[in-house]
Amino acid sequence: MEKVHAGIIGLGRAGQMHLKNLMTIPEIVIEQVADVFIENVSEHLNDIGITNQTRDYHDILNNPKVDTVFIFTSTNTHEEIVTAAAKAGKNIFCEKPLSMNQVEEASLNVLREVKKAGVKLQIGFNRRMDPQFRNVYEGVRNGKIGTPQIVKVTSRDPDLLPHDLIQRIGGLLFDFTMHDFDMARYMMNSNISEVYAKGGTLIDPTLKDIDDIDTLALVLQFENGTYGLIDNSRRAVYGYDQRVEVFGSEGMLKAENVSNSTVELYNNKNEELQKPLPIFKERYREAYTAEMKAFVRSILKDEPLVAEGRDVIMAQRAAVAAKKSLETGLPQKVDTSYPLE
Amino acid sequence: MEKVHAGIIGLGRAGQMHLKNLMTIPEIVIEQVADVFIENVSEHLNDIGITNQTRDYHDILNNPKVDTVFIFTSTNTHEEIVTAAAKAGKNIFCEKPLSMNQVEEASLNVLREVKKAGVKLQIGFNRRMDPQFRNVYEGVRNGKIGTPQIVKVTSRDPDLLPHDLIQRIGGLLFDFTMHDFDMARYMMNSNISEVYAKGGTLIDPTLKDIDDIDTLALVLQFENGTYGLIDNSRRAVYGYDQRVEVFGSEGMLKAENVSNSTVELYNNKNEELQKPLPIFKERYREAYTAEMKAFVRSILKDEPLVAEGRDVIMAQRAAVAAKKSLETGLPQKVDTSYPLE
Amino acid sequence: MEKVHAGIIGLGRAGQMHLKNLMTIPEIVIEQVADVFIENVSEHLNDIGITNQTRDYHDILNNPKVDTVFIFTSTNTHEEIVTAAAKAGKNIFCEKPLSMNQVEEASLNVLREVKKAGVKLQIGFNRRMDPQFRNVYEGVRNGKIGTPQIVKVTSRDPDLLPHDLIQRIGGLLFDFTMHDFDMARYMMNSNISEVYAKGGTLIDPTLKDIDDIDTLALVLQFENGTYGLIDNSRRAVYGYDQRVEVFGSEGMLKAENVSNSTVELYNNKNEELQKPLPIFKERYREAYTAEMKAFVRSILKDEPLVAEGRDVIMAQRAAVAAKKSLETGLPQKVDTSYPLE
Amino acid sequence: MEKVHAGIIGLGRAGQMHLKNLMTIPEIVIEQVADVFIENVSEHLNDIGITNQTRDYHDILNNPKVDTVFIFTSTNTHEEIVTAAAKAGKNIFCEKPLSMNQVEEASLNVLREVKKAGVKLQIGFNRRMDPQFRNVYEGVRNGKIGTPQIVKVTSRDPDLLPHDLIQRIGGLLFDFTMHDFDMARYMMNSNISEVYAKGGTLIDPTLKDIDDIDTLALVLQFENGTYGLIDNSRRAVYGYDQRVEVFGSEGMLKAENVSNSTVELYNNKNEELQKPLPIFKERYREAYTAEMKAFVRSILKDEPLVAEGRDVIMAQRAAVAAKKSLETGLPQKVDTSYPLE
Repeated sequence: MEKVHAGIIGLGRAGQMHLKNLMTIPEIVIEQVADVFIENVSEHLNDIGITNQTRDYHDILNNPKVDTVFIFTSTNTHEEIVTAAAKAGKNIFCEKPLSMNQVEEASLNVLREVKKAGVKLQIGFNRRMDPQFRNVYEGVRNGKIGTPQIVKVTSRDPDLLPHDLIQRIGGLLFDFTMHDFDMARYMMNSNISEVYAKGGTLIDPTLKDIDDIDTLALVLQFENGTYGLIDNSRRAVYGYDQRVEVFGSEGMLKAENVSNSTVELYNNKNEELQKPLPIFKERYREAYTAEMKAFVRSILKDEPLVAEGRDVIMAQRAAVAAKKSLETGLPQKVDTSYPLE
Repeated sequence: MEKVHAGIIGLGRAGQMHLKNLMTIPEIVIEQVADVFIENVSEHLNDIGITNQTRDYHDILNNPKVDTVFIFTSTNTHEEIVTAAAKAGKNIFCEKPLSMNQVEEASLNVLREVKKAGVKLQIGFNRRMDPQFRNVYEGVRNGKIGTPQIVKVTSRDPDLLPHDLIQRIGGLLFDFTMHDFDMARYMMNSNISEVYAKGGTLIDPTLKDIDDIDTLALVLQFENGTYGLIDNSRRAVYGYDQRVEVFGSEGMLKAENVSNSTVELYNNKNEELQKPLPIFKERYREAYTAEMKAFVRSILKDEPLVAEGRDVIMAQRAAVAAKKSLETGLPQKVDTSYPLE
Repeated sequence: MEKVHAGIIGLGRAGQMHLKNLMTIPEIVIEQVADVFIENVSEHLNDIGITNQTRDYHDILNNPKVDTVFIFTSTNTHEEIVTAAAKAGKNIFCEKPLSMNQVEEASLNVLREVKKAGVKLQIGFNRRMDPQFRNVYEGVRNGKIGTPQIVKVTSRDPDLLPHDLIQRIGGLLFDFTMHDFDMARYMMNSNISEVYAKGGTLIDPTLKDIDDIDTLALVLQFENGTYGLIDNSRRAVYGYDQRVEVFGSEGMLKAENVSNSTVELYNNKNEELQKPLPIFKERYREAYTAEMKAFVRSILKDEPLVAEGRDVIMAQRAAVAAKKSLETGLPQKVDTSYPLE
Repeated sequence: MEKVHAGIIGLGRAGQMHLKNLMTIPEIVIEQVADVFIENVSEHLNDIGITNQTRDYHDILNNPKVDTVFIFTSTNTHEEIVTAAAKAGKNIFCEKPLSMNQVEEASLNVLREVKKAGVKLQIGFNRRMDPQFRNVYEGVRNGKIGTPQIVKVTSRDPDLLPHDLIQRIGGLLFDFTMHDFDMARYMMNSNISEVYAKGGTLIDPTLKDIDDIDTLALVLQFENGTYGLIDNSRRAVYGYDQRVEVFGSEGMLKAENVSNSTVELYNNKNEELQKPLPIFKERYREAYTAEMKAFVRSILKDEPLVAEGRDVIMAQRAAVAAKKSLETGLPQKVDTSYPLE
């Protein structure tokens, strides 16, 4: 079996979850792992048989056995590490965004290095590989609903994040809605060309202090003339609410929330033991592994990447436009050209 | 049993449907009916025992036995007939709108006459009495989802209307979306203060010739700071798609489409005999009778009207604002004051 | 329009419900009504325009305007009235059973008179006309599940009946399960040839005093070699539980319970506002009218009867066999021949 | 972390599936594996790091590092290996049955050795650990439906098995229905005291040649006076149909089939992309791991076993009684005493 020889960079909470998933994929050999606080996880790594550990990610980039790096470090390091990995000739998996700077030139510079190096870069838009959304996506692409006309994304987090975390990862639009922009664009197979956003702090008014919001309603226009609606909330008390609906000339496809339970309770109060709606890690558990498998296939069999540089740029532009729309109260055009063609 | 003594004005298709419903309400005595083409329905009326028929609606207004009129004539007659009925001292049931003129002064003039006469006027926002939406509404009012934050209305017609009919009843925004504006406002218990609309002709490009559209996406802001999203289409091939969702600080209530079937088919194709989604008259069958019963109660027991003059003005203003938003590409403020207080 | 000229016999609670339904069918002219306590309902009848009232059902049988009688009197009068109506040459609608005597000869005698008179007799197995069960039935007949192999009927009453009523109408097997025997036989299109029953008093032990039970589990064998399972309870606290499932060589069709609500509530307790399950009259509301319409069609257009004499005999035999099975602890064969062929 | 030191005996298809699950449980150290055809899987085992391999299961029993054996060999070896493992002082996990002989004395002899050795023996009634059924079970035990009165188990295989396999594993009653007997008994928390079975070959008449059937309907009585119904089929074309319903004095709990999809398709044919019903390994995927985890807890923390020797004896007796009921056409009493108390 041909294998991907992987180096893992970043073993915080996200990195550990991804590591666990990567270990279930037979085509992946984990050659080396790196974390600035490697001593915190060293014993556990030894336990599970990963002994080649380092504090310095450059060791991985210099390791000739490694052909592919998975970057799970915090956002503010992406720009530096992705650039260095590209220069080292490694294939790269990295979460969005590629740079902290919302001015896209920083991200584009990273992508230019990736292009120059001729390596593969997959962006962690994991929801594209969620079985439910994938099923909708494929149905739409296969013409089951005719020509798509309207896409609706409902995306609500189960609870507020700490303010300091928000400041590090970029606020509702850049941390959360960006996934929805990507999903809407993916479903419609067309770039977002205009955004109108309306939102505020209906849950936590102190979010204003850090220039963030918790509730958001958006109308999108796509390049192909179709429409989109997104609504976001930071606190859905009933769980992680993730639904997508695509309406077209010949029908509608929608993915409802996922539940783990098929048990129904009937009693004289006429209530039902409701399907406990899943939390974050459970909801996209399969997607996290599936995106890695897809990346492996794109490396070993040259299949198309699930999400690439262009995708993160387009989603980021939509988020920037939404932010400006919130600030100005006006709809904002979104540039759909891509300079790295 | 105290009774409402009714005169029915207008016996076209809508009028006949309403007549049938009215006949099932024991508190209603149908004293007289009027239609300009009364000869077309005369025999059928005799068959069902309604013999006091006239061509001229003034006969009903002059009939001292009649205390309440139900107006089912075409939109362009509402202004005249409602005004005359108010002057004749009759209680009035009438479909929206109250005038053809989208400048609201005409409607306000009608409402001034109603107010002066001290009669009851109920507007036919029948969806307020739909059992599903009513159930959501009451849940929201009773605090089941805490403080409402986002309302979403999905409203899609099963098929395009003829152009000439559209011209008579006023286009998507005034014929169709107006119900959704009213529903959104009803659920949130707050006036719409701003509208942003994006739409076009994705189904029938010739609608442009009559200045209409077939597909629409809207973001609303309410006076109380909350948000709304509406999406409309004129052609949902799978049926009449009418759903409402209200999201709040303590949960979410939503009304899914109504189906008449609980039958499930399992076979080796893993398809299901899908719940045949209902068409228009079926979907709101109960609502049409329920709104009449509510009107009877408001007359006989002085209960509050389900929908009154103010409601039609507010929905109309939202439609006018949406139209201007479509024309200008900009969000539009909506006046929420009511001059007839 | 050709009409059925009806006489109604029996205006107790059931009779009044049926009368209301009959009045909605345009092909039915109600010529005369009879009840031994006609004075109790006389005023109400006058109110709704039915003035030809009598205490004595013979007046109806002697009324030359009446061609069809609907018999809603108590079970112990069926034998006498149906026989007399047949002799008077009237078409007959009657609830099961045709006689109090569980020895079927009494019922057969009634059916012989019906046959001799050449009139139509429809048995009130209303569930055959329930839209859900009808949908399953038609799917099965149209081959959607291939060859049927197993039928399952779940049938549970919402609450215990008074002992004196039970004694008048015949206990669980004859009042309640008999409908399920008919439904199972209808779905499989084959006579029941063997019954094994197991049951007891898990809810109300005092039912033993009147030789009745409240809980029942049955296995059926059909003449064509297929199998059936029925379970009954007199008290399902969550409502009237009526489900049917037919399994076959190419799939399964099942009718779940009917609910009036499509509203879903999500909150932090992960419960759902459960579809309020319907009570008796609501659950079969449409079936009651549909069976009457079917009877009208069979009279006016000579369509087949929905349920005829043979059907009540077969269901009754299954009930008798089940009773004997309970008494002996052994399975019982059921005679499937029909002497009136 | 305290660990279970495991030896795996039998690496056919079932064994390999279980091995994969066992490897995901951190408390389990796999010390050695055995299979009579170990050469077939040797390379794969080396690949996944299991190098201590043997052809002879005695090597495992003699391995002092091994404290627990998991037996996944064919049924005809259970009696010998379980007995030997007990004598060797190992804790034992084994699939039902414990002996080929349907006369229970052989199984009881095995259980006597287990008792004498004082080791733990868990029977692989995996469905007890299925999350859906577990949820129902816990609801019933916690009184959510009051006193249970009726249990219904629907259990249908997706397709016929080869005749030679059937002969090795014991026919519908012993291979398949036995799980349902256990489930019914588990839900009602009471022994089965009587069985009536009706069945035949509606799918494959040649099953008669090997004294087996493919379709089955059963009525059970439990020691505590309650009732059960089971229906089985060997071929449900739509997938693996596994449902359980428990009805009680205060309500009903039921577990519907599990689907992996929440995607709904609406089109003008009013069909739905039906939730693809799962096949065997998928349906109980979680249960297979959960039963192992439960066994680990019972060893390390002395928690009660999920299913023990008594359980397999009781299920086996029900199967034997059902077989006799089929042969005689009569209900059969089932002994509920347990000699190894």
